[in-house]
Amino acid sequence: MNDLTQRQPRHLHEECGVLGLYAPTRGELAPLAYYGLYALQHRGQESAGIVLNDDGCFNAWCDVGLVNEVFPRERLEAMGQGTIAVGHVRYATTGSDRKRNVQPIVINHFKGRMAMAHNGNLTNSFRLRQALEERGSIFHTTTDSEVIAYTIVQARLTAPSIEAAVSAAMDKLEGAYSLVISSPTKLIAARDPYGFRPLCMGRRADGMVVFASESCALDAVGAVFERDLLPGEIVSVSHRGMVCDTSHCGQRPKKLCVFELIYFARPDSVIDGASVSLARQRAGAFLAQEHPVEADVVIGVPDSGLDAALGYAKASGIPYAMGFTKNKYIGRTFISPTQSMRETGVNLKLNPIRAEVEGKRVVLIDDSIVRGTTCRRTIQLLRQAGAREIHMRVSAPPFVAPCFYGTDIDSADKLIANHHTTEEIADIIGVDSLGYLSLEHVVQLTGPENTGFCTACFGGGYPTEIPGPGEKDRFEQPIGRNKSDGE
Amino acid sequence: MNDLTQRQPRHLHEECGVLGLYAPTRGELAPLAYYGLYALQHRGQESAGIVLNDDGCFNAWCDVGLVNEVFPRERLEAMGQGTIAVGHVRYATTGSDRKRNVQPIVINHFKGRMAMAHNGNLTNSFRLRQALEERGSIFHTTTDSEVIAYTIVQARLTAPSIEAAVSAAMDKLEGAYSLVISSPTKLIAARDPYGFRPLCMGRRADGMVVFASESCALDAVGAVFERDLLPGEIVSVSHRGMVCDTSHCGQRPKKLCVFELIYFARPDSVIDGASVSLARQRAGAFLAQEHPVEADVVIGVPDSGLDAALGYAKASGIPYAMGFTKNKYIGRTFISPTQSMRETGVNLKLNPIRAEVEGKRVVLIDDSIVRGTTCRRTIQLLRQAGAREIHMRVSAPPFVAPCFYGTDIDSADKLIANHHTTEEIADIIGVDSLGYLSLEHVVQLTGPENTGFCTACFGGGYPTEIPGPGEKDRFEQPIGRNKSDGE
Amino acid sequence: MNDLTQRQPRHLHEECGVLGLYAPTRGELAPLAYYGLYALQHRGQESAGIVLNDDGCFNAWCDVGLVNEVFPRERLEAMGQGTIAVGHVRYATTGSDRKRNVQPIVINHFKGRMAMAHNGNLTNSFRLRQALEERGSIFHTTTDSEVIAYTIVQARLTAPSIEAAVSAAMDKLEGAYSLVISSPTKLIAARDPYGFRPLCMGRRADGMVVFASESCALDAVGAVFERDLLPGEIVSVSHRGMVCDTSHCGQRPKKLCVFELIYFARPDSVIDGASVSLARQRAGAFLAQEHPVEADVVIGVPDSGLDAALGYAKASGIPYAMGFTKNKYIGRTFISPTQSMRETGVNLKLNPIRAEVEGKRVVLIDDSIVRGTTCRRTIQLLRQAGAREIHMRVSAPPFVAPCFYGTDIDSADKLIANHHTTEEIADIIGVDSLGYLSLEHVVQLTGPENTGFCTACFGGGYPTEIPGPGEKDRFEQPIGRNKSDGE
Amino acid sequence: MNDLTQRQPRHLHEECGVLGLYAPTRGELAPLAYYGLYALQHRGQESAGIVLNDDGCFNAWCDVGLVNEVFPRERLEAMGQGTIAVGHVRYATTGSDRKRNVQPIVINHFKGRMAMAHNGNLTNSFRLRQALEERGSIFHTTTDSEVIAYTIVQARLTAPSIEAAVSAAMDKLEGAYSLVISSPTKLIAARDPYGFRPLCMGRRADGMVVFASESCALDAVGAVFERDLLPGEIVSVSHRGMVCDTSHCGQRPKKLCVFELIYFARPDSVIDGASVSLARQRAGAFLAQEHPVEADVVIGVPDSGLDAALGYAKASGIPYAMGFTKNKYIGRTFISPTQSMRETGVNLKLNPIRAEVEGKRVVLIDDSIVRGTTCRRTIQLLRQAGAREIHMRVSAPPFVAPCFYGTDIDSADKLIANHHTTEEIADIIGVDSLGYLSLEHVVQLTGPENTGFCTACFGGGYPTEIPGPGEKDRFEQPIGRNKSDGE
Repeated sequence: MNDLTQRQPRHLHEECGVLGLYAPTRGELAPLAYYGLYALQHRGQESAGIVLNDDGCFNAWCDVGLVNEVFPRERLEAMGQGTIAVGHVRYATTGSDRKRNVQPIVINHFKGRMAMAHNGNLTNSFRLRQALEERGSIFHTTTDSEVIAYTIVQARLTAPSIEAAVSAAMDKLEGAYSLVISSPTKLIAARDPYGFRPLCMGRRADGMVVFASESCALDAVGAVFERDLLPGEIVSVSHRGMVCDTSHCGQRPKKLCVFELIYFARPDSVIDGASVSLARQRAGAFLAQEHPVEADVVIGVPDSGLDAALGYAKASGIPYAMGFTKNKYIGRTFISPTQSMRETGVNLKLNPIRAEVEGKRVVLIDDSIVRGTTCRRTIQLLRQAGAREIHMRVSAPPFVAPCFYGTDIDSADKLIANHHTTEEIADIIGVDSLGYLSLEHVVQLTGPENTGFCTACFGGGYPTEIPGPGEKDRFEQPIGRNKSDGE
Repeated sequence: MNDLTQRQPRHLHEECGVLGLYAPTRGELAPLAYYGLYALQHRGQESAGIVLNDDGCFNAWCDVGLVNEVFPRERLEAMGQGTIAVGHVRYATTGSDRKRNVQPIVINHFKGRMAMAHNGNLTNSFRLRQALEERGSIFHTTTDSEVIAYTIVQARLTAPSIEAAVSAAMDKLEGAYSLVISSPTKLIAARDPYGFRPLCMGRRADGMVVFASESCALDAVGAVFERDLLPGEIVSVSHRGMVCDTSHCGQRPKKLCVFELIYFARPDSVIDGASVSLARQRAGAFLAQEHPVEADVVIGVPDSGLDAALGYAKASGIPYAMGFTKNKYIGRTFISPTQSMRETGVNLKLNPIRAEVEGKRVVLIDDSIVRGTTCRRTIQLLRQAGAREIHMRVSAPPFVAPCFYGTDIDSADKLIANHHTTEEIADIIGVDSLGYLSLEHVVQLTGPENTGFCTACFGGGYPTEIPGPGEKDRFEQPIGRNKSDGE
Repeated sequence: MNDLTQRQPRHLHEECGVLGLYAPTRGELAPLAYYGLYALQHRGQESAGIVLNDDGCFNAWCDVGLVNEVFPRERLEAMGQGTIAVGHVRYATTGSDRKRNVQPIVINHFKGRMAMAHNGNLTNSFRLRQALEERGSIFHTTTDSEVIAYTIVQARLTAPSIEAAVSAAMDKLEGAYSLVISSPTKLIAARDPYGFRPLCMGRRADGMVVFASESCALDAVGAVFERDLLPGEIVSVSHRGMVCDTSHCGQRPKKLCVFELIYFARPDSVIDGASVSLARQRAGAFLAQEHPVEADVVIGVPDSGLDAALGYAKASGIPYAMGFTKNKYIGRTFISPTQSMRETGVNLKLNPIRAEVEGKRVVLIDDSIVRGTTCRRTIQLLRQAGAREIHMRVSAPPFVAPCFYGTDIDSADKLIANHHTTEEIADIIGVDSLGYLSLEHVVQLTGPENTGFCTACFGGGYPTEIPGPGEKDRFEQPIGRNKSDGE
Repeated sequence: MNDLTQRQPRHLHEECGVLGLYAPTRGELAPLAYYGLYALQHRGQESAGIVLNDDGCFNAWCDVGLVNEVFPRERLEAMGQGTIAVGHVRYATTGSDRKRNVQPIVINHFKGRMAMAHNGNLTNSFRLRQALEERGSIFHTTTDSEVIAYTIVQARLTAPSIEAAVSAAMDKLEGAYSLVISSPTKLIAARDPYGFRPLCMGRRADGMVVFASESCALDAVGAVFERDLLPGEIVSVSHRGMVCDTSHCGQRPKKLCVFELIYFARPDSVIDGASVSLARQRAGAFLAQEHPVEADVVIGVPDSGLDAALGYAKASGIPYAMGFTKNKYIGRTFISPTQSMRETGVNLKLNPIRAEVEGKRVVLIDDSIVRGTTCRRTIQLLRQAGAREIHMRVSAPPFVAPCFYGTDIDSADKLIANHHTTEEIADIIGVDSLGYLSLEHVVQLTGPENTGFCTACFGGGYPTEIPGPGEKDRFEQPIGRNKSDGE
């Protein structure tokens, strides 16, 4: 019934987290997969799934819900043993297709079964799908993940192995994808040639190989981080060992989503060699440099603004403080106050600590302003708690363009920065001054040199062709509506 | 968590029930579909699903569970409005694929969406599937329903309409199928040329057309029964009216599953013109004629043996009595007594009414003996309640062969009648005499003339080719196990 | 969430079922208690509870819900071992006190703990309670069960043993009560001197003593029925053996609730020596004698009208038939059709079997008519199924007076028989003729001699003083409303 | 089923949080009470309850579970309207009495109903209870809350009003109690004369009066904090206005539990005039002064060690960092890794941020060491993440004595500080140095002057008589075990 409960508005979503485990000997992998997905939960709270491969027999369980909801103890115990596990967490969508689009997807084809977990978004999914449909193919979902699977299986008709099929399929796929795939006997991980989404690998002392979207999942399962997959790399593990295919590497410029560092990833993760926590502190330091202000205290909006606030405080010399207490019990079944309640002051999620802000000039750090509504409310709370001045600093440039690579930024017409100048926004949200991180600095979050970031949503340009308007609609609107059935 | 609860052993399953609603004007069809499925619940307790078609937009909800579990009030309300609804209930399977195989299936193809509910089993599913796979097609389920959908979509590539595609597909499909299909604009029902599974239609006063596996679902939704679909008939309804395609009718001999009358269907249903209740009473009367005995009372095993017991009583002149009270609260979460408890007399499901059987010679009627274990237990209870003699009469011939047309009779090696003579069985289950209905009479349940029944499971011969052993395994065992991946 | 689901209207309720187990050696009694309560489930679907006494340590679990809902496997397993178990099922009430009033109640007093399960209703509860309250006593519930417990504990202050305290308390208690009580070391059963409610005892082969409201619960746990408790009897079991106190026996005339035989009890139970099933058949035979009619078929309203229908058929010579199929999947979460749906014919619970009633003169037997609404609906269905004439026969006299002894007959002003003659009722519900069982015959259900029945609800007079109007209100309305707090 | 799930070990519990709302006009108070309890959720995760008083009619709902589990939307909506609400959250206990001990308790007495929520523990509960039992009183729970209610009702026999009864009862009650009570017409709050537990009041713009354990709950419901109740004060609100009774004030020295400031309370609360967040930072500063060390970074154990870490960092000049990421999705249904998994490095709750600690000398701040096991594990993680030196500082003195005033510190024999010197503990948990806050400084957390704290658990002496060993056992062990029943 959770899915019927009113949810908190959230305007920024990561699409997914992926996980793969390959054990040299048969064992109970499901609990480990469970812990790995728990560590990736922040990348998707909509659905969770694990497929356990026991010598070609695929035991799958996926459902809408958080990891702990989808996998109660009995379910986990019922998954049994295996040598390969593929896991997935998925972000929140709405509507009737939620149950249908859970992952990992498991399909049957002429060579047996295949399980696949996917993070990212294709940009040529529409065209690939159309070509398949015109040959009479049927699709069960509206996801581009199914298109990827279909493309791999088609390639497998002529490719000598599943890895070769993945490689051949990558010649056709365009856009963002980090994949973890299980064939009956192999575990395969692949990252698109731009490297939009992170994907790393590690190893446990018992020889188990682990692939995961973020290194925090390696820590969670007791694996030691080895390295990130290269953009374009395919790694295959089987009882014969590990094979790395780098034939697609270097074909494209590296374009890691910079918002992974700013917001999506967990602070304890290390992505493409950079500590997420340090990158955020660096963003704060850049902000102090770009938008200095005289103030008494620096506070961050929990949880994602805290690192940048600390960075700003250290760089500016203004004292750092914890300005808010966050109610940690608010979950998905929380019943939000009505608007009329809110107007009488009912407030639960964040509560300012009056002793830290009363009578003070406050620098407030957050990672983004999407529509501005949440932000305005937070600032009102600070004012009620007695803040004398509020200077907001945002640890990213303004959002101005939609993302086609697997994140779900609010639609362009709702982005406040598309309609208003920075001064106007300051006025709307009610701050004394407002400063965003510059596009110039955002690409230096991991060091003075730009190691390759996608900044499309900040107006930095799309690295690939993007879908035409009709193609985009195809995925968002119900298929079949207004279509003649030809008779 | 229901799915983890220990279930009662059941050795005889109907595969499914299907339902279709076409309303001339848009409205809330989901509650009606809910009531229709409730009336078909006895045909499948494993999963339930409704797809609501609102002008080409398909709103689907399917899940494992009983109708009332899958559709709490909020879910039903959330389904909204539409003009076409397709519903399905599915029988109990086990294992990890349960969630994946729920119906109706909804697929996307080049002409839009299609929803389909299926009752029955193909016999050439393996070969159709193999041919599709060899062209690189992928399958999400292990059901032959997906094979049917794929075959229809392939036919649609050249067929001028969806009905024409169904008709063309029927040239390829072999076996048992009653289908209800929704295209973006039409509701289509089809019954295989043998008519293995029932399918009927009716109409509500408000003009709504209803298709259902059994007439009791028409009664439930307030529709008046019009007629059964002919074996081989395709009926299509749209805003242009109703079209009937009888081009496949008469191609095959009619072969209605006789066990629909004996056990599966509800007593208040009318199938191919015959009252199920009367057919069962007729079975009892035949038993009285074939296996007369001197006795004091005739009792039936609730619920399915009651009609035949009444028929036996009337034909023999021996008084009818209700010999058992059935605990009506025992559902799927009931925790069965352990074997050691049973041995101390713990017994819940059926309790004999001592006053009716003590000191008496009892004729006991049931519809079948599968393994004999449940039966033996029931007879022990009667003995403990003081029955002096027990003469068992079974309102069907002995099971000796597996069914390939959509019912799940226990595997041949577990069928008691495959290993033992009637005398031996009488001895094993502990009765004073035992008599089965003859093959000769079973085909006369609806009248003196055999109107066409499949009696394959009673040794009456298969009307169609049946799958080879390897083909059968393909569906029952996990795909992919022991398959080389070719590299 | 079950408790928020709309329920079927039900206008006749048994209050409760009680159960007690005493094992000579420590063991897992909870599963046995679970099976016993399952067999008593028809006596109360509102809440269920088991208290396990393990050498003075009381492990209790009670909650609203059916037995299987309150006791999932884990809960049952968590109850551990013991030598005494007390169980209870409770009928459906409404409102916020449902959770508070679950039983068995467990209380602490100066001699340790006591658990008690109660079936029935006191008539002097108000006065006993008032006297206790005036001494500053507090009550946690609004049940008379708590008053009984308090009265026993007060008696224990001077009584030499718990049995003696029960006996002393019985001098003060007036009305209906069948009790099962556990002290730290003993299991005690007691039945009020009128014997309003049934209570019987049995024994398992392993020496376990079992008390239960009905004998069907003895069958369920593998105990052999020994005898009913005498009205007024107290039986105590401990490691020293069994002691029977009959000092209150014979003080009052026996007044078994006759509606136990007609409706409440299960047909397979034997109450005070009489088979419930036979008593109902006898009611049918009396009806045939009192209200004969020319007809083609006799049918009963399932489930409680079936026995009487069989009795009528046998006595009249008119053939018996099963006229309805009842949907056995309709449970407490079923979403009832709206009135407007009903008017379009949507109908689920009962469906007539057209082949049995079409064109026929039907005798329809039910056990009661409360408000007449359900009845009228059933008769409409029969008419729609083609019944030519409908002659209704009711296997009890008309309800005309409220019950104060533990059943919940609808309030007097809603009882149709209070406002209308039999002819008018026939007209309202739409039957061709209507006949009730006479008050004269209802007391002969177990044989030609009246062995002592309460027929107060049929106008047969109250055996005891009944509560005054203010006293009755006290229990039904929220306590405290409109009360001044004295300052 | 949540209650069967394995829980995280927690060794320090607050007993409860209480809440009271009095609205001048009738309205929907349940949602406001829900938000207030949400803000107090950290004070008790075991059970939650709300009693709504609608003109003397008490609508109560209490159950085990978190606030959002106990109150789904439908439940909250079903509570209706009223003018007074009493709420409660309760800490985690174990065993079969969990359901029975939920609060607020609602009792009936000669003056009507009374609802009461209680935080704290009496020290003379055993004797009060015994005296009541010896007069034949019965108790439904093992809580001292029921003893308080009984004592008030007894006092009401002679007191002219409910407030007077509370006042008279306070002459008998000894120990810790913050109470919120609803009579049919009044809302009453009372704090024991020592002021062990906090209790404050505020007012909403619409005139509603709010009592709460902590000021954060006032913020949550939109009320402005007015003041803390004085130790010994009774405040009563009714339609006649507010009356404050200070007759018990000053009878005893003030003894606020200092652990409220150190750990229990939320950082944004203000208790008896002191900001909890500032008090914790002050504790950190005292630690820096008492136990200075050369180091590179100061980190706190989330969440309760963070404030003190910041205080230490500021006082010492050593940089502050966020050293851990806490997985915020770990709730009560989380399945803990087994010990063998832990040994292979599986770790979920806290993950060190390597970039902040690798190669560094770390000062680690936590609020307490109970058994030392969790602590040792955390330190291992830091070592694995590369910390060069670890200097642990604890923002409280060592636990050495049990608490009898409403907190649940682990039993004395399991407290590591009871068996080991500080040096030994440092060795056991694996740190390079260890320092506790001194008893001298802990009483200066809110300023240089000791405003009155209970430090009994740190060896500071008990302000009251404490229960004898037998009396303590009485509450902890099952009542009735080993008790003779006197016959």
